[in-house]
Amino acid sequence: MSSLKAATALAHPNIAFIKYWGNRDQALRLPSNSSISMNLAALETRTTVRFDGQLAADGLDLNGAPAAPAQVARVSAMLDLVRAMAGISEFAQVTSSNNFPSGSGIASSSSAFAALALAASAAAGLALDEPALSRLSRRGSGSASRSVPAGFVEWRAADTDEESYAVSVTGPEHWDLVDSIAVISEEHKAVGSTAGHPLADTSPLQAARLHGVEQRLAQARQAILQRDLPALAAVMELDNHLMHAVMMTSSPPLLYWQPASLAVIHAVAAWRAEGLQAGYTLDAGPNVHVLSAAADAGEVAVRLGKIAGVQRVLQAAPGGPARLLPA
Amino acid sequence: MSSLKAATALAHPNIAFIKYWGNRDQALRLPSNSSISMNLAALETRTTVRFDGQLAADGLDLNGAPAAPAQVARVSAMLDLVRAMAGISEFAQVTSSNNFPSGSGIASSSSAFAALALAASAAAGLALDEPALSRLSRRGSGSASRSVPAGFVEWRAADTDEESYAVSVTGPEHWDLVDSIAVISEEHKAVGSTAGHPLADTSPLQAARLHGVEQRLAQARQAILQRDLPALAAVMELDNHLMHAVMMTSSPPLLYWQPASLAVIHAVAAWRAEGLQAGYTLDAGPNVHVLSAAADAGEVAVRLGKIAGVQRVLQAAPGGPARLLPA
Repeated sequence: MSSLKAATALAHPNIAFIKYWGNRDQALRLPSNSSISMNLAALETRTTVRFDGQLAADGLDLNGAPAAPAQVARVSAMLDLVRAMAGISEFAQVTSSNNFPSGSGIASSSSAFAALALAASAAAGLALDEPALSRLSRRGSGSASRSVPAGFVEWRAADTDEESYAVSVTGPEHWDLVDSIAVISEEHKAVGSTAGHPLADTSPLQAARLHGVEQRLAQARQAILQRDLPALAAVMELDNHLMHAVMMTSSPPLLYWQPASLAVIHAVAAWRAEGLQAGYTLDAGPNVHVLSAAADAGEVAVRLGKIAGVQRVLQAAPGGPARLLPA
Repeated sequence: MSSLKAATALAHPNIAFIKYWGNRDQALRLPSNSSISMNLAALETRTTVRFDGQLAADGLDLNGAPAAPAQVARVSAMLDLVRAMAGISEFAQVTSSNNFPSGSGIASSSSAFAALALAASAAAGLALDEPALSRLSRRGSGSASRSVPAGFVEWRAADTDEESYAVSVTGPEHWDLVDSIAVISEEHKAVGSTAGHPLADTSPLQAARLHGVEQRLAQARQAILQRDLPALAAVMELDNHLMHAVMMTSSPPLLYWQPASLAVIHAVAAWRAEGLQAGYTLDAGPNVHVLSAAADAGEVAVRLGKIAGVQRVLQAAPGGPARLLPA
């Protein structure tokens, strides 16, 4: 039980501007299409992994409490990959916490599996380069691949495990964009992403969504590089509607929007008509992410807070990469 | 100015189970796809047309007040078609009223143009058979073609004016279904259908929506003939989501749902899970039409009335055809 066999890592969740929905390989989490996202600086997961020959099984503490068996199993599957890569066999104790409220509907699997992959691989003595770490993170949660590189990130779809990983489009300092997250209570238990992705191909609209994605990726990439918020908002909202169109026409249908989600969507469109530049997008849940210039983020937060059904507003600037923390 | 040159007709609006959205010919209103609907018995438009050689222009009174110039122009265009068919040249005075509140978001163009086509053609001395009357009504508003035959109706798409008209699938007495309409105030002025249809082909999803429509039409037809509400609800809701998916991904996007619309949608899904059979669909507006057995319609109305944002509930059984009224 050497101290070399423990490591702590930090990763940020990310919000996708061009969405990931559907896999070409469910087991490997090879996505049906490439996606583009921004890491969220203010939100973070910190995870410590300690391999220990005295343990009889993997253990997981999540936000200060023992995790449910299904969560332990998903973490163990990632640890198995790391053990196989490192040629070790010890079980591990994993301790993980988020600085954002659980139950707030913030998708934490992206930061969770990026931090886990980095902490586990470092604890196992592996020094993975960024593409390898992104690939490994992807195996735990597709969107976790995007939480590995810094800032604005693109995850490329590919037919093999080796080729599908994320790279930074540009760093977090490139654009002072802010994501104001309107947190909306979930009245209904949503279908999680892992259960949802396999449904994507049951929608009669998924093929059409995929058909145009390279063009939307190019538009989003250019909008980011040119710091063009109206252009980003246009392509981000179209892509958002395309994903939710696929969700709501899948079998069974998935309708993640709640009444307050729609109130925020209509409000953002109205603000824009009045001259306040902003754009919205939603993940597989009712929260609405409103992207604006940092200079407008205070006003956006005030306005969001006044909308009925918005429980709280979280804000985040572009975030850095997944990284190791001192012991 | 003969008394033979006046006639009064009544027609019901209809609610589409399989939606009409997009035209293959905008001027002739030849639809991109066939559609299936139910006439709404409790709701009606009554229209009197009087051709009069003394008039200097067509006139239109709508619900007791002179209509706006754009409305008069649209009515005149229909009268022009009738005058050409009948070989007459007199202008006409048109008086029309609905028994349902204006501003309630009930699409009245279907009943309005079916009643107008019938009253005008009869006043002009024409005795059009049902297909001819349906075709003529279609020229004023596509969905008006479906308000001509009785009960449950299918309007076939075709490449020519001659071939595109509606026929009854089965009469109103076939199935004691009730449409409970949750009337939701329009917070935003919606884009009307006539302006919306040309946008359908700007959506990357319209082709995929059209690709599967013959299968959905067959499913809806069978569900109606077998009085199978769960089957009707499934295909109706899928088709509804497909249409709204096209709308919200068109350029510009059209998002007709309001927060209360979504509250009703989620409520109906929850009721169904509890055993109350019902299905929903929305037109190009925020109102939600909830179809149920007549025996459950009272309970549906009570529940709809308790949902925040629902202003009132209107109910209608399957309605008869467009018909002439005694002078």
